[in-house]
Formats: sequence, structure tokens, C-alpha cells
Amino acid sequence: MGARENGLPDTTPADGLPAEVEIWEVGARDGLQNESTTVPLDVKLEFLDRLADAGLTTLEATSFVHPKWVPQLADAEDLLARLDRRPGVAYPVLVPNERGLDRALRAGVEHVAVFASATESFARRNLNRSLDEQFAMVDPVITRARAEGLQVRGYVSMCFGDPWEGPVPREQVVAVGKRLLDLGCHRLSLGDTIGVATPGQVTALLAAFGDPDPLAVHFHDTYGQALANTLAALRSGVRVVDSSAGGLGGCPYAESATGNLATEDLVWMLDGLGIRHGVDLDALATTSAWLADHLDRPSPSRVVRALRG
Amino acid sequence: MGARENGLPDTTPADGLPAEVEIWEVGARDGLQNESTTVPLDVKLEFLDRLADAGLTTLEATSFVHPKWVPQLADAEDLLARLDRRPGVAYPVLVPNERGLDRALRAGVEHVAVFASATESFARRNLNRSLDEQFAMVDPVITRARAEGLQVRGYVSMCFGDPWEGPVPREQVVAVGKRLLDLGCHRLSLGDTIGVATPGQVTALLAAFGDPDPLAVHFHDTYGQALANTLAALRSGVRVVDSSAGGLGGCPYAESATGNLATEDLVWMLDGLGIRHGVDLDALATTSAWLADHLDRPSPSRVVRALRG
Repeated sequence: MGARENGLPDTTPADGLPAEVEIWEVGARDGLQNESTTVPLDVKLEFLDRLADAGLTTLEATSFVHPKWVPQLADAEDLLARLDRRPGVAYPVLVPNERGLDRALRAGVEHVAVFASATESFARRNLNRSLDEQFAMVDPVITRARAEGLQVRGYVSMCFGDPWEGPVPREQVVAVGKRLLDLGCHRLSLGDTIGVATPGQVTALLAAFGDPDPLAVHFHDTYGQALANTLAALRSGVRVVDSSAGGLGGCPYAESATGNLATEDLVWMLDGLGIRHGVDLDALATTSAWLADHLDRPSPSRVVRALRG
Repeated sequence: MGARENGLPDTTPADGLPAEVEIWEVGARDGLQNESTTVPLDVKLEFLDRLADAGLTTLEATSFVHPKWVPQLADAEDLLARLDRRPGVAYPVLVPNERGLDRALRAGVEHVAVFASATESFARRNLNRSLDEQFAMVDPVITRARAEGLQVRGYVSMCFGDPWEGPVPREQVVAVGKRLLDLGCHRLSLGDTIGVATPGQVTALLAAFGDPDPLAVHFHDTYGQALANTLAALRSGVRVVDSSAGGLGGCPYAESATGNLATEDLVWMLDGLGIRHGVDLDALATTSAWLADHLDRPSPSRVVRALRG
């Protein structure tokens, strides 16, 4: 049975919503880096193949963070060496610093992503640097990557709430984000790393940025708000949404951060809203159910459980 | 630690949103009727007491459906006899037919809820009647209940998708709903019984009804859409939202229907949007975690798991 037989896809998007959304699939990186089970390389490669088969065109593939911090992705070089890169599919990788960039360049990567914290506390806990000092690390990465002709995405963490500081001032988020854009990032991904934001705050932060064109959103579902927040972001003109297949993932360094927005739950909403995305929901949900078996736990995605539970 | 210390409550609601929402708590009825574990009467009574302590003012308490169909609520008379009715709290009960109304009247109930299906297939499966014939059952219940001075809520099931028929025509839902209003229901609760709807469809159905004042919404989270749909309903002017503490519940007669929207996840969003609701989130989440222990399974609510997991 097709996934949508009980559903109600519309054919044209509602007023104020984009006609098409790019899904930036982070399951293989942000997802797997936070799973307690380390997935074998062959499974990762099959996962990426299956995500591409399901129609996803941006697959964040792995991370060049030091293996001491993220042992789940210690096989980044091997993964990229063996990866079957599909035409029309981008395989960005996360690089935290120049050493990571060196590794990514040797691996023949064309897209990288860097990250910065919007708060002092998270910069110190995650990077062991102050809010200002983190730029001494990330600035040369962006500059060099751009000089090498790479596309560079900038992640901004803790854009709404911070577990140590509480609410994060919008102007602070905008300042960090604009600095990344000015340095040459082609896009910013605004992360609700601990999943506390609600739709009004999303609307307000996006308004504070102004132009939504270079913005993506990255919501975690810790408090069940991820999809409602995504809806608010779409209404604000954002057209790139991060999600992870099956709702994998989180952030191992943030208290009470649970999974990312599930790609399947996002796709269900986009279908219903008449927004194009290019993903085959049945194939994707089957892939997520297959990976959940490898992880030996149910998928956190409601859609995956409804269709494949 | 207070539930909202990492959060970001706004003080005024965003444009186009109501200043206050009434939460119609269905956990003790729609929630418990679908749990495989039957909860002892003493636990139900404590659950209702704790929900009132947490600030909820409308507690759907039980159902006078025949115990053969809903054995979990076979203790309806005993529950109402022993219930500590709080001033300012309404305790509506579900009544399917005149026999159920008789029982409710004997129990001294002041508010009842009736239900009708928006589709032929669900009327036949749930009520063993055609779409038209169901009114022969429900009409006299409403008429008599109104004559007895009771408030009557009308539930409409399968307002968006139906597991046997697929998409449900809006005009059919409006026709069923308006008939219930014309008969004397003071409010309609529009149910997405199988949880397939997305926000654009919610907006469209509410627009088809016109005036949102007599409308409530009742979303299930089967496909993860419940909170996004609620946001769309609030934007359409709806001010009464059904939810169940801890995300309990579902519908035992509908394929793949899982839990209701969790009250805690709703409250988290309302807090963030600056919408008043009167509920103490910490007390509520503690109550849901306590009940989940009695049911011997984790709460489906993301907020409950984040705060009490």
C-alpha cells in the first residue's frame, strides 16, 4: 500500500508557503554521531545509497571532528573513499577546524559545513573557546575552503535556548550568523540544539535576520516542537530544512537534546501542503526501519512507526 | 528546576493568535479507553484529581459506551459516584446513545459529549449504522440532553482522512458538523481520528466551516502532525484544543490511530507563544510520568520524557 493512501496531498501549496523545499538530510552525520551503537561502515554506505535511492539530494555524509570526540564517525576517510557518489547528489561533511578541513580536502570533498555557537557557554563546553575565540578557529576554515572552491555551510548552535544560559538574545544569534555569512558561507543553518523553541520565536528570529534566502533551519524534537517550528519557518520564507531519516540523532554535548526532526514526518507535512521535495516516502521509511533494526531500537519517527511499525 | 528555565516564554501572543486557549483534557476518557492496561478506579480518581490540581478546568472523565466495547471504562458509574468534583472544573462524559444518556443523567452529569462520523465507512464500522442512520441515534440524545439542561459537545470523527475511504470531502464534514450544531451542540470537536491531516487541510476545513467560535480541534499524532495542525487551527481562530495528558490514547476502532496530541507538548508551545492556558506544566508532566508508570510504558509525550524521563 502506498504511504499516502489515507492521506490528503494537496496539489498546490497554501498561500505564503514555498512551492519547493530542499531537504538537507543529516541522518548519516548528526544522526549517527549521537547514537550509542556505532554502525559498521558497510551499513553506513548502504544507508547513504538508500537515502540517495529515496530521492534525497543533499546527504551530510560524515564529520571530520576528532575521533576522540565522535568515535561513531571515526571511519570518515574510509567512508568517503568507498562512497558511491551519485550524480546530482551533494555529500557535504562537517569540519570543525583546519585539521578537519585538511582531511576533508584530501578526501576530495566538495562541500563542507562549519559550526559556531551562538552562546558563550556552549562555545566553552563544545569547543573549549570563548564566543569570540571560536572565530579564530572557524574563520580560517571558511576562508581556505572558499579559496579551494568549496561550498561552505555555517551551522549556528543554540539559536533559541541554551541549557546553561536560558533564552538566547536574538541579536547575538544574528551577529554570529552574519559573521559566518560575511566570511563566505553560502548558507546558514540555524539550530535549536536543545529543541526548546516554539513557532513564535522562530518567526521572530527569522525576522531579525531579514532575508530568508541564505537561511536553513535545524530543529530538534526534544519538546515535540520541531514540525510546528518548521511550519513557522516555511511561512517566513525559509526553503531549506534540515532533518534526519527516522529522527536519528541529537547532540552528544547538549543536555537533554534528543533526535532531529524526522525526515519522514517532514515529508508527510510537505506532501499535505503541496510542497515539492523529491523524496519517495515509502522508500525512505523502509530505509529508516531497516536502520532502526541495526540500532536495535524503534525509530523515533511517528511516520516510520505508523507505516512500518 | 522549573520546566521552562531553558525555554523562552513570550509575554504576548503573536499576531493572529488567541490570547487564551481552553484545553479540553481527554486523557481520562479518550486516553484510557485505548490503553491495553485497564487502570484501577483508584488510579483514575487520583489521575483526575491531579489533573485538576495541575490547573486543567475541563476533564472528560469517562464514557457511557457499553462496557462490552470499552471495558477500560466499565467503571463509569463508580467513578462518577466517587469523583471529587472541584468548583470551576467541568467533567463531561461521552454518551453514544439514549441508554448512555440515561446512565449519565442518573450519575448527575452536567456536560455530555456525543459523536458522529463524517464518513459512511466509519459510521458502519464504529456504530453499525449508515451516515444518515447515525443521526437517528444521536439526534434524540442531543435533544433530550438539552431539554435536561445539559451542555452537549459534538465530536465529529474522521474529518480529514478515513482508513477505508481516503480523503474526506470537506462539505461532508461541514454537513455533519452543522447538523450537530443545529440540533443544539454548543461546540463541535473536529477529529483527525487517524492523524493524517496536515496544516493546510486544517486551515481549509476551518475556512469551510466559517465561524471558528463553536469549533474545537482534536488531533492524533499518528504521523507526527498534531502540534503543527494545532498551530494552524489557532491561526484560524480556534480557541479550544483537545489533548491528552502524556499523549495517552487513540481510537481502538481505527486502523493505525495512535495517541492524542500530548497536553504537555501543547502547553510548551502555548507558553512559548505567550498564550494563556492556566496549566502548571511541571505538575502535569509529573502526573503523566506517574500514570505512565502505572501503564508500565514510557509516555509518548516528548515534553514528559524530556522533563521526567
